[in-house]
Amino acid sequence: MSQPLASAVSSRPANLPVDTASLIVQGRDQPGIVSAMASTLAGLGANIGSLDQYTDDPVGGAFFQRTVFHLDDFAVRRPEVEEALDAKLSEFNLEWTLRDMSQPKRVAIFASTSDHCLLDILWRQRRGELPITIPMVISNHTNVAEDVRSFGIPFFHVPSAGEDKSAAEAEHFKLLKGNVDVVVLARYMQILSADWLEKVEVPVINIHHSFLPAFIGAAPYRKAWERGVKLIGATSHYVTEDLDEGPIIEQDVVRVTHGDDPAELARRGADVERQVLSRALKWHCEDRVIRNGHQTIVFQ
Amino acid sequence: MSQPLASAVSSRPANLPVDTASLIVQGRDQPGIVSAMASTLAGLGANIGSLDQYTDDPVGGAFFQRTVFHLDDFAVRRPEVEEALDAKLSEFNLEWTLRDMSQPKRVAIFASTSDHCLLDILWRQRRGELPITIPMVISNHTNVAEDVRSFGIPFFHVPSAGEDKSAAEAEHFKLLKGNVDVVVLARYMQILSADWLEKVEVPVINIHHSFLPAFIGAAPYRKAWERGVKLIGATSHYVTEDLDEGPIIEQDVVRVTHGDDPAELARRGADVERQVLSRALKWHCEDRVIRNGHQTIVFQ
Amino acid sequence: MSQPLASAVSSRPANLPVDTASLIVQGRDQPGIVSAMASTLAGLGANIGSLDQYTDDPVGGAFFQRTVFHLDDFAVRRPEVEEALDAKLSEFNLEWTLRDMSQPKRVAIFASTSDHCLLDILWRQRRGELPITIPMVISNHTNVAEDVRSFGIPFFHVPSAGEDKSAAEAEHFKLLKGNVDVVVLARYMQILSADWLEKVEVPVINIHHSFLPAFIGAAPYRKAWERGVKLIGATSHYVTEDLDEGPIIEQDVVRVTHGDDPAELARRGADVERQVLSRALKWHCEDRVIRNGHQTIVFQ
Amino acid sequence: MSQPLASAVSSRPANLPVDTASLIVQGRDQPGIVSAMASTLAGLGANIGSLDQYTDDPVGGAFFQRTVFHLDDFAVRRPEVEEALDAKLSEFNLEWTLRDMSQPKRVAIFASTSDHCLLDILWRQRRGELPITIPMVISNHTNVAEDVRSFGIPFFHVPSAGEDKSAAEAEHFKLLKGNVDVVVLARYMQILSADWLEKVEVPVINIHHSFLPAFIGAAPYRKAWERGVKLIGATSHYVTEDLDEGPIIEQDVVRVTHGDDPAELARRGADVERQVLSRALKWHCEDRVIRNGHQTIVFQ
Repeated sequence: MSQPLASAVSSRPANLPVDTASLIVQGRDQPGIVSAMASTLAGLGANIGSLDQYTDDPVGGAFFQRTVFHLDDFAVRRPEVEEALDAKLSEFNLEWTLRDMSQPKRVAIFASTSDHCLLDILWRQRRGELPITIPMVISNHTNVAEDVRSFGIPFFHVPSAGEDKSAAEAEHFKLLKGNVDVVVLARYMQILSADWLEKVEVPVINIHHSFLPAFIGAAPYRKAWERGVKLIGATSHYVTEDLDEGPIIEQDVVRVTHGDDPAELARRGADVERQVLSRALKWHCEDRVIRNGHQTIVFQ
Repeated sequence: MSQPLASAVSSRPANLPVDTASLIVQGRDQPGIVSAMASTLAGLGANIGSLDQYTDDPVGGAFFQRTVFHLDDFAVRRPEVEEALDAKLSEFNLEWTLRDMSQPKRVAIFASTSDHCLLDILWRQRRGELPITIPMVISNHTNVAEDVRSFGIPFFHVPSAGEDKSAAEAEHFKLLKGNVDVVVLARYMQILSADWLEKVEVPVINIHHSFLPAFIGAAPYRKAWERGVKLIGATSHYVTEDLDEGPIIEQDVVRVTHGDDPAELARRGADVERQVLSRALKWHCEDRVIRNGHQTIVFQ
Repeated sequence: MSQPLASAVSSRPANLPVDTASLIVQGRDQPGIVSAMASTLAGLGANIGSLDQYTDDPVGGAFFQRTVFHLDDFAVRRPEVEEALDAKLSEFNLEWTLRDMSQPKRVAIFASTSDHCLLDILWRQRRGELPITIPMVISNHTNVAEDVRSFGIPFFHVPSAGEDKSAAEAEHFKLLKGNVDVVVLARYMQILSADWLEKVEVPVINIHHSFLPAFIGAAPYRKAWERGVKLIGATSHYVTEDLDEGPIIEQDVVRVTHGDDPAELARRGADVERQVLSRALKWHCEDRVIRNGHQTIVFQ
Repeated sequence: MSQPLASAVSSRPANLPVDTASLIVQGRDQPGIVSAMASTLAGLGANIGSLDQYTDDPVGGAFFQRTVFHLDDFAVRRPEVEEALDAKLSEFNLEWTLRDMSQPKRVAIFASTSDHCLLDILWRQRRGELPITIPMVISNHTNVAEDVRSFGIPFFHVPSAGEDKSAAEAEHFKLLKGNVDVVVLARYMQILSADWLEKVEVPVINIHHSFLPAFIGAAPYRKAWERGVKLIGATSHYVTEDLDEGPIIEQDVVRVTHGDDPAELARRGADVERQVLSRALKWHCEDRVIRNGHQTIVFQ
């Protein structure tokens, strides 16, 4: 199915908030931060729509804040806002990020042969549930190509067999560079090198199966079945160099019984995976997730 | 079992935060509220530990805010704090409530013959899980008296049979007046009059079974069983004149099967009821719940 | 997108069990039923793979049994099996149904404009998760046509506006007659007449939103939001003349907060709806659900 | 508090089914087992109330069956039933167990200082929710003694400090020998020796915290918090020589957030632990759990 070039990216969601920005502030907790931030925004004529703050220790802990505010003509006045925040927050030595929420985040999806997580994201994006566009899907296989293109989204096949992934990874960067704000590994079954992770420069979100207790290595569903687990779970996390050990964004489980064989466990697991990954991606793209070392703060 | 008079109230929880206060602010949303509140607290030398804000409509909606702050010698400096907040917030025409979180809320529990919700609260209070003391348990029956007194808590028997509840209700007020901050109906099976609700002056929290769909009237578990429901639920809410229709604080469900008879449904229901009521009470007593007409805002 | 005629029905799932049958028996409980059934099957050389039995009252109650057995060359020997069961079970005056589980059930899906339940079923069928074929999708709108056909499934547009549905319903029967074993209403927003329900002759499965408590009539998510509910649910049931009141097959809920507006409640509700409907359909098509008046027995 | 000797054991639950037995059968799957079992029971005049069967592989797998039947004067006719079953089932080379369900199982509870799991079981037993009596609670501490005795149940203090547990373990056996059918470790914080496990001769059920992923060793809640987990779980299992690795009976989780500190995680964990352990104990004592190597079959 050919797509006209003009639509060669998923369409923009219709319901993004106009003249609205998110401000994430984090650093060492000190008296007066909220006051400084709020008076700056008030001085500009902005109206705070929601504000969430968390301190991991009331005495000398770390400070995390998400503020969503409305300001007429934000896009035009943005430099002025940045200047004012910079002047007021500099004394506290905090990190802060300002983002125009009327702009969708650009998400690249990496997939292999499984389609459950991939399609769930494509469906939700098309329905307007996610504040994102999807400029591309990259896969080391071709079986999802037709499905992806039926959504009007470009599909790129980047084979990645063999030990040496450097050619594949170079190809990834040619495609991603400057075009995306987030990468989602939607059951992408290749390991990305430490070098890749260092160079990619945007957050990378992964999904993997989880059990109580954990089962390491190959054939986890068979091992879980042999142990007779009663719950099957999934974890979505930011990818770091420690494989499957990055900061957790979201987790969930489903109940299974002795009557479910390993194949059924895997199917039930796939159901949880797609729910968990879609929630994690949504929260990330709504600027609700702040990383704090191995933890995440998720303001829901 | 006799209790020495000195301990004739549940003991004070050991882990209440010192020099810590909650400030609940609500009213019509306007630019500058957060700034005014935060700069006032900063000016007093207070440090904001957590701040949650919610606006039900970014344009002209209602504004709700819970701030928890630390201020050395809060108990002594409280009048000063109140004066400063009054001066700064008066122009916004908002309601605000300040509470010393080092002080436990005093909770009266009303019970009938069922002990599941009652005992769950007594256990949790004794373990230090709830920021409350329990100055009394009132029941229209006597079967829970011994259990209650084994926790060192006074038990009062106030019979309430017959149509005319006025004598019983007068007795309630004699016991409650000035002694409690919250009343919990822990499966209290008597209807309290509109007059009682008007006079009680403290929030009243109730728990009742809930189903999808609802089953009105007597023998709800039998009706739910006849309809073959697959989930049994419970709802905790503030009591208003509309019976079982007040603002919802918390809800939860458990899964049941065709193999569970009405008696087993009621047992499973009791399990959810005690969990839901204990959570609702905890959140209320941590000042996390703000009423907004028929809704509640629950800052978790 | 044109589909070659040969594939103008969803493909047959690959993993159906061969030489396997389900036997559903129900009626008044009496001693000896299990023995009669089991000895008949043993006498034929069949091996019982799973057997679930339930009696709603140990004394004189109703009896429900699902047996799955393996018998070489079942398709050929089926008349012999039926004769043997008829001879042995006739004295007990029971109803029984025998079904060849190597044959998928043929499912017609009715949809309107929402795609979440529809796509979930189409996609699970394609993955081989459901023991069904989908010979047709019928809709009173056209917006899902292209998606449906991209799965290789025929789409029929049957408009149903106006008071008089008789022409639309006649068209339905022309399409369905003899071609399907189950009808699924996947957010089909038209009411089907009592006459239609009587004539359709196959089970009809519906999905609808559910809350604790229930909110009747239009705009249920807005009403639920106004009441401040903390759980959003969905119920799948067999359709009977009592609208939305038929025997419940499956229910589930998700947790929501005050921060979720009515639109977000509806999105979260859609997530539960698709999960619940797909589970209900799977269990129905695996012969796990037995109707008993207003109840269902679900052998999982 | 002194207890009259006559009540020096928890009272017998009132609602145990009369003239009712459970029959557990397991072994290699073969055609004809159900028929042989059912015709034997029918020949004796018994009526099967419920029957659950599971085969882990339809061809040559392992066979598990739980049958509950009613037979007038079962206690008197038991030898006759055993003889008939023995005669009929011997050819299949199966293991089978017959139990009189009108008799409660005798449960010894081991506890340390935590009371949440202990009290939940004592209280459910008193309410008649569990088909058990509790002849004793054994603890290596004394703080739960008064609570236990207030339920009319004997409490025995068996200190277990130091490396050498042999004196304590000898004391355990003096108390348990012949008096109990199950041992429950309700947050008993001592390791029992391999020798103890070999000698105890009755099933031992444990509860422990579980996470996704697992956190090994000391301070698991702190580690879970440091990793930012979003779910806290508990697992109940049979105790085997592999510490915390025995066959799983039941598991569950609760959702937590970044705002919950390690102490709150532990409190939430305690809530799941008591629910999971009570359910596991109930199912075990209703003969619903069959062990199969490292797995369990749980017929619900």
